[in-house]
Amino acid sequence: MRHDERESFQLRPIQIDTDYLIHPEGSVLITVGNTKVICTATIEEKVPPFMRGQGKGWVTAEYSMLPRATGQRNIRESAKGKITGRTMEIQRLIGRALRAVVDLEALGERTVWVDCDVIQADGGTRTASITGAFVAMTQALHKVYKDRKLSKYPVKDFLAATSVGILEDNEVVLDLNYIEDSQANVDMNIVMTGNGEFVEVQGTGEEATFSYDQLQQLLKAAQEGISELFEHQRMAIGEEAAAKIEEKKSK
Amino acid sequence: MRHDERESFQLRPIQIDTDYLIHPEGSVLITVGNTKVICTATIEEKVPPFMRGQGKGWVTAEYSMLPRATGQRNIRESAKGKITGRTMEIQRLIGRALRAVVDLEALGERTVWVDCDVIQADGGTRTASITGAFVAMTQALHKVYKDRKLSKYPVKDFLAATSVGILEDNEVVLDLNYIEDSQANVDMNIVMTGNGEFVEVQGTGEEATFSYDQLQQLLKAAQEGISELFEHQRMAIGEEAAAKIEEKKSK
Amino acid sequence: MRHDERESFQLRPIQIDTDYLIHPEGSVLITVGNTKVICTATIEEKVPPFMRGQGKGWVTAEYSMLPRATGQRNIRESAKGKITGRTMEIQRLIGRALRAVVDLEALGERTVWVDCDVIQADGGTRTASITGAFVAMTQALHKVYKDRKLSKYPVKDFLAATSVGILEDNEVVLDLNYIEDSQANVDMNIVMTGNGEFVEVQGTGEEATFSYDQLQQLLKAAQEGISELFEHQRMAIGEEAAAKIEEKKSK
Amino acid sequence: MRHDERESFQLRPIQIDTDYLIHPEGSVLITVGNTKVICTATIEEKVPPFMRGQGKGWVTAEYSMLPRATGQRNIRESAKGKITGRTMEIQRLIGRALRAVVDLEALGERTVWVDCDVIQADGGTRTASITGAFVAMTQALHKVYKDRKLSKYPVKDFLAATSVGILEDNEVVLDLNYIEDSQANVDMNIVMTGNGEFVEVQGTGEEATFSYDQLQQLLKAAQEGISELFEHQRMAIGEEAAAKIEEKKSK
Amino acid sequence: MRHDERESFQLRPIQIDTDYLIHPEGSVLITVGNTKVICTATIEEKVPPFMRGQGKGWVTAEYSMLPRATGQRNIRESAKGKITGRTMEIQRLIGRALRAVVDLEALGERTVWVDCDVIQADGGTRTASITGAFVAMTQALHKVYKDRKLSKYPVKDFLAATSVGILEDNEVVLDLNYIEDSQANVDMNIVMTGNGEFVEVQGTGEEATFSYDQLQQLLKAAQEGISELFEHQRMAIGEEAAAKIEEKKSK
Amino acid sequence: MRHDERESFQLRPIQIDTDYLIHPEGSVLITVGNTKVICTATIEEKVPPFMRGQGKGWVTAEYSMLPRATGQRNIRESAKGKITGRTMEIQRLIGRALRAVVDLEALGERTVWVDCDVIQADGGTRTASITGAFVAMTQALHKVYKDRKLSKYPVKDFLAATSVGILEDNEVVLDLNYIEDSQANVDMNIVMTGNGEFVEVQGTGEEATFSYDQLQQLLKAAQEGISELFEHQRMAIGEEAAAKIEEKKSK
Repeated sequence: MRHDERESFQLRPIQIDTDYLIHPEGSVLITVGNTKVICTATIEEKVPPFMRGQGKGWVTAEYSMLPRATGQRNIRESAKGKITGRTMEIQRLIGRALRAVVDLEALGERTVWVDCDVIQADGGTRTASITGAFVAMTQALHKVYKDRKLSKYPVKDFLAATSVGILEDNEVVLDLNYIEDSQANVDMNIVMTGNGEFVEVQGTGEEATFSYDQLQQLLKAAQEGISELFEHQRMAIGEEAAAKIEEKKSK
Repeated sequence: MRHDERESFQLRPIQIDTDYLIHPEGSVLITVGNTKVICTATIEEKVPPFMRGQGKGWVTAEYSMLPRATGQRNIRESAKGKITGRTMEIQRLIGRALRAVVDLEALGERTVWVDCDVIQADGGTRTASITGAFVAMTQALHKVYKDRKLSKYPVKDFLAATSVGILEDNEVVLDLNYIEDSQANVDMNIVMTGNGEFVEVQGTGEEATFSYDQLQQLLKAAQEGISELFEHQRMAIGEEAAAKIEEKKSK
Repeated sequence: MRHDERESFQLRPIQIDTDYLIHPEGSVLITVGNTKVICTATIEEKVPPFMRGQGKGWVTAEYSMLPRATGQRNIRESAKGKITGRTMEIQRLIGRALRAVVDLEALGERTVWVDCDVIQADGGTRTASITGAFVAMTQALHKVYKDRKLSKYPVKDFLAATSVGILEDNEVVLDLNYIEDSQANVDMNIVMTGNGEFVEVQGTGEEATFSYDQLQQLLKAAQEGISELFEHQRMAIGEEAAAKIEEKKSK
Repeated sequence: MRHDERESFQLRPIQIDTDYLIHPEGSVLITVGNTKVICTATIEEKVPPFMRGQGKGWVTAEYSMLPRATGQRNIRESAKGKITGRTMEIQRLIGRALRAVVDLEALGERTVWVDCDVIQADGGTRTASITGAFVAMTQALHKVYKDRKLSKYPVKDFLAATSVGILEDNEVVLDLNYIEDSQANVDMNIVMTGNGEFVEVQGTGEEATFSYDQLQQLLKAAQEGISELFEHQRMAIGEEAAAKIEEKKSK
Repeated sequence: MRHDERESFQLRPIQIDTDYLIHPEGSVLITVGNTKVICTATIEEKVPPFMRGQGKGWVTAEYSMLPRATGQRNIRESAKGKITGRTMEIQRLIGRALRAVVDLEALGERTVWVDCDVIQADGGTRTASITGAFVAMTQALHKVYKDRKLSKYPVKDFLAATSVGILEDNEVVLDLNYIEDSQANVDMNIVMTGNGEFVEVQGTGEEATFSYDQLQQLLKAAQEGISELFEHQRMAIGEEAAAKIEEKKSK
Repeated sequence: MRHDERESFQLRPIQIDTDYLIHPEGSVLITVGNTKVICTATIEEKVPPFMRGQGKGWVTAEYSMLPRATGQRNIRESAKGKITGRTMEIQRLIGRALRAVVDLEALGERTVWVDCDVIQADGGTRTASITGAFVAMTQALHKVYKDRKLSKYPVKDFLAATSVGILEDNEVVLDLNYIEDSQANVDMNIVMTGNGEFVEVQGTGEEATFSYDQLQQLLKAAQEGISELFEHQRMAIGEEAAAKIEEKKSK
């Protein structure tokens, strides 16, 4: 039993509130246990300079935390005047992951700006961001599609993420909260698509290592957790969008 | 009648949700119409270098907006690498206003860090921040007092703020929303204490001016609105804290 | 009696030296007691990107202090690599104030860059900057008008500023010097136009408050002081420019 | 056959020149095909503030490229005034990987600064940096040990890294050069220790995904390549250091 | 004859106004033709970290230009967020030159901060800064000496600087103004001490070169000009300080 | 005899390895004693904005050191977020010097980017950079000429640099290494062209001065050293390029 009474392979309670804000084209508040992230999607009718003239779109993401999302107050990155390595790593990961399920050619020369702002952190903020961002992005893109601006549906598959890890007692667990994460020997973030393929596998031992067998167990735990997340996403995006994605996959 | 059917001197609906986040010592979500701000208060057991050794405390504030708090996405200040003049002006105002009602000597060598993060903006974000920040700060300070770390109660009076302005048709109005604000000739932010005194009066004509008589009307509108805000704050902080403040004022 | 033997509502000695530098289109050295500011105006034949194509002009201001303008040497903002909140607040105020008396449409797609560099500081540097900048700007714009580049005179009215405050002994005073300013309970900067209207009213209690009655006295002191400043400006800009402004006002 | 006539699971030619520079405590030039990286290790007799007083050491890494390490000239990060996300990600990876094989307690309150400067790039610069940095670090730590400053040997195991990937034709390949890397669907960096455990597994599909079976083949290719790298490292660090590491592992 | 009717080896009119500002320990306005620089000296009772504990003092300089010191407005370095290479070069030169005539041991652990702010530029701003800064620094140090804080007089000799150059017609000239400077093939700045020794010789051909013979003529022109500058400095610092310097030299 | 057994006017051993890297249009590793610098030249088919439309080219240089080029590790300028004054001074010097021997009109609207990266430092890094950069630049420009893109040969003359100085015992020496440089009273860098003319003469006394006679000796030492450097450059660039330069000079 884990300290919060979960099974090894049990996710924390998930909630995805859609249309959370009035201004963005897509917005959700995703809650994973005590972790809460506001994810928004903005559609811009142009692409960055390096993409121009190719007829393709782009998806980019930014990530931040409120100073008191955490137990100790963090100095704002705007006050420091620069973005930390951790933030850069996370926002590059989110953007890259989302691009794996977007048909950039169907999108045309448009950019999707995804913003993930953590208002409360208790471990797993980057994976919650990906899972929530997929919903916000799909809602925004669904509107663009409904406005008849696109000839093809731009979302190719579902996309969700979770963390897995190996605790100090060698237990392999799913969806680590902050206490578990800070004591784990190995921490792994996995991003998968609805058809069961991997998009990202990032496993790290901080002053520790892990064997081939342990890696297999970590992958298995992640697969179980992520298939559950897809159910939450399916309900959040609604039947029409879900059907469009399934139709796209079957082609 | 105003475009959202309010009277000239009518506030938008106000809501103050307390204990909004689990980590900070004080936290509220304040809602003023469609404007929503998360205000948190953090107690740090030291003061900035320029204050050390004086036996007094300090209150400082930071302010930010999520990129999609607004109709158009704003570039993050962390991505720009610097804080805009507007943000600096606002966070200096919030800190200065709060310090007017804190007994810094009673606080001892402690800093209160107040963070105001606008998650949705529809005009009046700086005044909503001040009104909400007062509640978050009072909750945090009340806990410090209850922990018997202070010999005297550190909050001297209530503090709230609103905006008033002169619309294009010369109507003097209370609590401008974004549409009104962007068309107004004169914009004024007023911060007052529970005993009816002014802390800040900041009136500005952008490519316009205002007469002595108009200034008197603006002040009157603000007084009416702010006295209503005090009632919301009183309920939010709870009877015990409210009684302590009244007791402090009567001395 | 004040510590420098002035009456409560008495300004310090004022001097405005015009054509102070050879390169700028307009330049003055304004002296208010021991406060000395070099104000220059530069005409640029284009507007910032956000203004383009509207057929209107723009006025923008920058403010700085020499490191030894003050009793203690200040670190240069260029050495810090960023502009402080105080500087931003002041330069935004100067620009906004000047724009209130410029007919931006008459100006056409031109920018007036106003630079206020404090070479010696003894309180009231922002209000001296505004009063001096008005003269430098008017001289520069008068030349543009004389060069027959504008169909209408671009300056709509006089503009001057002063500070007022409440000292520790509750005395309301005009034009605070540094010693008074650092001890005052309330500090207020007022910007007015030649026809007696307000452009900016910024009153602040630092760890203090002020009543409605005190506010009225502060406004009255400011009105008296500013009307005297207009006389100095009138002499500085010369008869021809003064007549053009009066003619413009009477329309 | 690959475009440079290598087998799928064949590394490029490897060379590790030790004592490459006269000043650093450890320095190598590692050559992997056309990729060349100067790796240096510096011993500092203190730890960063967050580590002080724990009796433990720290290993940190920095990574950079000369502007013309690549086919197109890159703007220097010093000229930009900031470090890119890619550089941050890489230098965090190198530091974290090295810490997995250092006995930080045996090191005492010392920091090892590892600098990896790519002078010529042809794919795989981050993995070449890790493989070379291990040798430079071990040489530097071996000297500290020989100077009798440490009671225990501080290096716990060998550490090397390589890249594996899936080309456009679905071929799984080892040690991608730049041309392969820029066309690959999946790119994976693997860091392993001498005893066959994983330290980092970072697999990424850029606008692509990979199956569970493909992941297994990628891991296998990496294991083969890395075991060959250990032989080069063993020769580079010399018999005495290699024996000390083996002795440490056997405990 | 030069375009302003000077002889080849003739300086522009020089004026050194001392005690120009009320706050600094030493301050002058130096005027060289149309070039005007405010030079101030500040005494700080400590040295920078790299000098501590050696019982010696330090002299450092900063240099800046007002935006409209020149014909075209320059963007402020504070607005750019960084100091240009030209400014760095000049302020390093000023500091180094002044240190050549200061007895840093006699100064004790004190820093002299010299600030040179160009309010009007017409060529030769760096050499005018050095010549003026010497006077401001000597005045400040003379006060420290008179306050009996130093056992020995800290100024070892006079120090002045000028520019020489070769015009397009191969004429060697002294003290170039802006028009001459912008057309010259060779530009040279020379700093000398009262006893006729060189401190700095910086000659540069921009897309041009100069012969050994030309170099000799440039040095001769500089020597003549600088000996004249010493007379102006002698009057500016006053008899008492001048006598102290001569006494120090004769030892 | 000097501490490394050289004569006063003897250079350290010189080596210039050409085609050192595969990507740049020109690249050398220059070795001067223990000082080693990688110099590369990149041809860009456009000029900076301030040069456009003039039909002329530009040459610009950047300079950097690896962190462990020196005995103590230096913090990277990219980590500091800004370039030091020393680096700026050096890279401005390199660019200016190279431009003196390039026929910018023959070059057409192209930029030569020269990068000098010091991988090992033992004094004289800026002069070694100039000497090596000339070779890298000439190789790159020779290729452009051979590609028939230029109607005239763009290199007008040879260009090399060395340092001279006065040691503590008043000995005038050529090509100072780090130990000599750090103890010298006077340090002078001289850049000359193949026809014996000066491009730069930068002599500096740090807390010291030098006489007219000493200056003459310094110049003589530099002339001897530089004529030897030209022989190394002649061999490095090859007969064809050397002949082209001689032909250009003779016109």
